[in-house]
Amino acid sequence: MPRIAIIGIGLIGGSLALALKRAQIESLEIVGCDTERGVAGRARKQGAIDHEARDATSAARGAAIVAVATPISQLRDVFEAIAPALEEGAIVTDTASTKRDPLRWAAELLPEHVSFVGGHPMAGKEQPGLDAADAALFEGRPWAITPSMGASEGAIRAVEGLVATVGARPVIIDGAEHDSYVAAVSHLPLVASTALFTLASQSQAWPDLATLAGPGFRDLTRLASTDPGLSHDICLTNRENLLHWLDRYIEELRRLRGLIADEGRQEELYKEFVRAQADRDVFLTKPPERGPAGERPETPSAREQMLSFMMGDYLVRRTKEIDRMLDERERDLREQKGP
Amino acid sequence: MPRIAIIGIGLIGGSLALALKRAQIESLEIVGCDTERGVAGRARKQGAIDHEARDATSAARGAAIVAVATPISQLRDVFEAIAPALEEGAIVTDTASTKRDPLRWAAELLPEHVSFVGGHPMAGKEQPGLDAADAALFEGRPWAITPSMGASEGAIRAVEGLVATVGARPVIIDGAEHDSYVAAVSHLPLVASTALFTLASQSQAWPDLATLAGPGFRDLTRLASTDPGLSHDICLTNRENLLHWLDRYIEELRRLRGLIADEGRQEELYKEFVRAQADRDVFLTKPPERGPAGERPETPSAREQMLSFMMGDYLVRRTKEIDRMLDERERDLREQKGP
Repeated sequence: MPRIAIIGIGLIGGSLALALKRAQIESLEIVGCDTERGVAGRARKQGAIDHEARDATSAARGAAIVAVATPISQLRDVFEAIAPALEEGAIVTDTASTKRDPLRWAAELLPEHVSFVGGHPMAGKEQPGLDAADAALFEGRPWAITPSMGASEGAIRAVEGLVATVGARPVIIDGAEHDSYVAAVSHLPLVASTALFTLASQSQAWPDLATLAGPGFRDLTRLASTDPGLSHDICLTNRENLLHWLDRYIEELRRLRGLIADEGRQEELYKEFVRAQADRDVFLTKPPERGPAGERPETPSAREQMLSFMMGDYLVRRTKEIDRMLDERERDLREQKGP
Repeated sequence: MPRIAIIGIGLIGGSLALALKRAQIESLEIVGCDTERGVAGRARKQGAIDHEARDATSAARGAAIVAVATPISQLRDVFEAIAPALEEGAIVTDTASTKRDPLRWAAELLPEHVSFVGGHPMAGKEQPGLDAADAALFEGRPWAITPSMGASEGAIRAVEGLVATVGARPVIIDGAEHDSYVAAVSHLPLVASTALFTLASQSQAWPDLATLAGPGFRDLTRLASTDPGLSHDICLTNRENLLHWLDRYIEELRRLRGLIADEGRQEELYKEFVRAQADRDVFLTKPPERGPAGERPETPSAREQMLSFMMGDYLVRRTKEIDRMLDERERDLREQKGP
């Protein structure tokens, strides 16, 4: 049976498992593990995974796809742990918010006979952990796919299929580009949101401000509730890109400040608001497509894409196992006969 | 029948009408008008209002409460138009985002025999107009109430009752304080959101950024879709407060930037994220109360509060009308008799 291993069954790993279960792929076996005691057991009882593994190494053994959904700070150790257990032709993917380090660690630690295809679902929630996991978390969301240099075409297609199977929109992109772009649309918003909340909540007027805060303030500060470990990991692993966009944001705020302050430039200010509203309307109503890779594959074909790879991989492995068994049997027979 | 006039039946005025209808106050008559052709008619057909008035002056005539829900740029003209039509003891309220100008215009233009009690519902949507109106728009939202110097205690209680009747949480506050606080929790978020969207959408990488933008980016840029006229009005009418908070925000971003850039201060940075998350949790789970005025009155008593005022007002007017009719009849009788 084709097997997928999910290492780290938190919000993302748990949602991935649930979304795969929802896709009802009969022949697919999901193995999961988590360093937090009891989590894998709960995931199995909930029906998110089929089997618990005691650690990453055993989870990876025999898996066609290994999806590592731990915090990025544990990723290097997980790669080290799974490397000896990975089958030839297996695919390793991850879900970390930045891709430079995962790609480097994969090149350094994973065997050449596997394909590393990085991944980053652009979806999340404030609540971390398996309890917050949701089969619909990835529905319609972009999921960046960053293949390593050595990844096979089939492996890239398989990850694309996996991503589409769980309802997300695969976006194949270079790892360095990914890190620079998400700094703008994900990491800068995180810092902007945290700064806004901190400014208000650390102000002496906070009790009054909080009383008046409406849905606008809530939405704008939502990302301040991100898991602090994740926020900090993002700052650590994508520092240069984040600082670049943060500087540009401060510059943009200064520019708008100049327009607001200048009575002679009110028409210009008004036009800024008009343009922002119009452009955002376009953004919302015509979701962008990024070349053929940006197209969302139909679910059945996506599923077939993933399965055909996994099946193919399974057959390759099975053939090898049979070959090895036959070899061993031949050797045994030879030994029985004696030299 | 006690009458409330709603002048301007857009998103806010329309939602106010629908929410009052939802409260099923049998004896309440809602009169509405809008400068946009056909809007009042549609509102009547939808059952949001009972009667159309052809303009603000006629709408205000005979109303116990006049709620002006036009853009702030039309407020002064509306005050001028309704002033001669207002009954003695009537209440005028508004829904503008800033309160300094409405309070000044009310003092300047409204007759002394009415009470001006400013209002500002901290609720909204990107879509403007009657079509976006929603009876549940104010549900659980703060609604600032800024009484003028001359407003009677009964008038303040009546507006409080009106606000609670439509499901909002009344927050009585001084007008100048209001403008300073909403600059922090409403107007700064608007500018921060617009700046973030403009920065990304004006960038050369926008097609790629848009492809990767997830729910975080969408939420953080939601306020960039605010009606441009409203955004500009806010900047015009609350400039000093907004600039003050904008400067503090830029300062806060610089401070966080410093922590992100400095390898020696990573623990400090991590603690910032921890504190923001923890404080926001408290903010979300324990909505603030601002003294007795912040308490949400029970709906029945709130409704009674509003109605008892309106009924009282109605009786006062009715008594005067009867007195006048009697006077006229007496005069007629005298004239018939001849001098």
